[in-house]
Amino acid sequence: MDRPAEFALIRRWLTGMDQGAGVVLGVGDDAAVLTPPADRHLVMTVDTLVSGTHFPEDADARDIGHRALAVSLSDLAAMGATPLWALLALTLPSADEPWLAGFVDGFSAQARLHGLALVGGNLSRGPLTASVQLTGHVPAGQWLSRGGARPGQLLLVSGTPGDAAGGLALWKTAPSPERDALLARYLRPSARVALGQAALGVAAAAIDISDGLLDDLAHLCEASGCGADVQPEALPLSPALLACFGRARATQMALRGSDDYELLLACAPESLPALQRAAAELVCPLTVIGRFETSAGIRINGEPLADTGAGGFRHF
Amino acid sequence: MDRPAEFALIRRWLTGMDQGAGVVLGVGDDAAVLTPPADRHLVMTVDTLVSGTHFPEDADARDIGHRALAVSLSDLAAMGATPLWALLALTLPSADEPWLAGFVDGFSAQARLHGLALVGGNLSRGPLTASVQLTGHVPAGQWLSRGGARPGQLLLVSGTPGDAAGGLALWKTAPSPERDALLARYLRPSARVALGQAALGVAAAAIDISDGLLDDLAHLCEASGCGADVQPEALPLSPALLACFGRARATQMALRGSDDYELLLACAPESLPALQRAAAELVCPLTVIGRFETSAGIRINGEPLADTGAGGFRHF
Repeated sequence: MDRPAEFALIRRWLTGMDQGAGVVLGVGDDAAVLTPPADRHLVMTVDTLVSGTHFPEDADARDIGHRALAVSLSDLAAMGATPLWALLALTLPSADEPWLAGFVDGFSAQARLHGLALVGGNLSRGPLTASVQLTGHVPAGQWLSRGGARPGQLLLVSGTPGDAAGGLALWKTAPSPERDALLARYLRPSARVALGQAALGVAAAAIDISDGLLDDLAHLCEASGCGADVQPEALPLSPALLACFGRARATQMALRGSDDYELLLACAPESLPALQRAAAELVCPLTVIGRFETSAGIRINGEPLADTGAGGFRHF
Repeated sequence: MDRPAEFALIRRWLTGMDQGAGVVLGVGDDAAVLTPPADRHLVMTVDTLVSGTHFPEDADARDIGHRALAVSLSDLAAMGATPLWALLALTLPSADEPWLAGFVDGFSAQARLHGLALVGGNLSRGPLTASVQLTGHVPAGQWLSRGGARPGQLLLVSGTPGDAAGGLALWKTAPSPERDALLARYLRPSARVALGQAALGVAAAAIDISDGLLDDLAHLCEASGCGADVQPEALPLSPALLACFGRARATQMALRGSDDYELLLACAPESLPALQRAAAELVCPLTVIGRFETSAGIRINGEPLADTGAGGFRHF
């Protein structure tokens, strides 16, 4: 591909996506120039998807675009932040225009949904990798962190965990309504941005489930200096997951499976009604599945886990 | 590699690098929480290095760490911005601790030099790729852009362009003082951050040389809506480049070679003394090599280039 065509590709790819709050100078210079919102803290994160590691090599470009943005949005959601600006570093084996059009389609639909401006990008040749850096904002002095859970608080999960693991397990199987629904939850996760924002000032702590519910709960407990007891029978398992795998395996997927991008929240019992009202307004399932305790570590109905780190997604 | 070891690796890797101006919550949660500086615009950029595309596959980890940060710093330099925060997305084939220690060593030395805090990171398994997102700041309403050059202004270049191309051409040759000096300029470029800051309010436009002097000058001219005439005999060629390649080839390398990460600046004649004084204080070579003109396109001593886009680095 010659050089002018490459620049045309970059221009077409980014056109119209760099408009948004605080954007003074968007795409096209050495860097973007931005006005931070007044009286707010900024929240920043970066996440990378690697082909063959974080999604199947034959996944659809549109889904990869959706997912690349959703996994980073999920980090903002876990902080209670409002999305603001994105930078996208995309590495491609070749300048495949139809592929790029699909990727941009999936990416930009998510960006529009969350009011996010794409203010910078980098397009390189190499193995397929998409790295998305996001900036969001929270009211000054107010954000959700992993470190706020305290003994006696309730443990809640959004959505129906395990669906993503179920979908991935059915990747190569024949289409069916249940299989397709689960696969969509793996390929096109919905970052719980609105729930995170609603939980600001109400929930005590939050983390998103990327590695697996028990693994991420262990991170939250470690950061909070407490432990937790989980009641697996309270897990909100989706009808599709139950239909495809049965209760025992579905429960394991909900506890151990990765890639759900749901939120785990800690909440004082007296704040539960307010949190549940907020979730109901957003039509977002939110379920109490356990309780935080003084004693460190994770327990399942009071029984300590042999290895809280096992079963989740491994980066290495 | 088991999961606790991976987390230990990430922690060790990032420890102590997340301290800096405006950092409220550094590494360890779902995202960082930051306070933007008052009365400033933020400047954001992202750049990616891919092994085998942007550096030789057998390059030293320390040099890759240095270079991954320097190429993004160069974008901030071209805007006149002061570096503030970095996020690093690193993809590695395996959890090779000595490699990672070397990379961090090279990266953190550059970060310290420029007062940059590493506020977020992502470590994935996959082909070697390093993507660095940076945030800097400029006084409100004041930044260098590509679009400010006007006919009659002077064209200046920092440092000694062509050295990086010369170094890369000598990658597999026997060590010598000249070859080693040139190779260091390719592997460990010095982003001209201080020069960019000093040029704020003095220079009219800026761009960094990543694709090659003529290619990047063409971008600057296009954004500014003017043309330029370059005098190759005015190019500041380094003694090492002249010794290794002779004047004719050294001149071609300076005009066409990529990866210099020097700055091209546009400056009104009456502002030249102030700009040269600032560069002298920084001990940074800064040389007038041409002039901006009304007529579009790039000329070499008045002769139009057949193809201004040729010879630079191609991403595809």
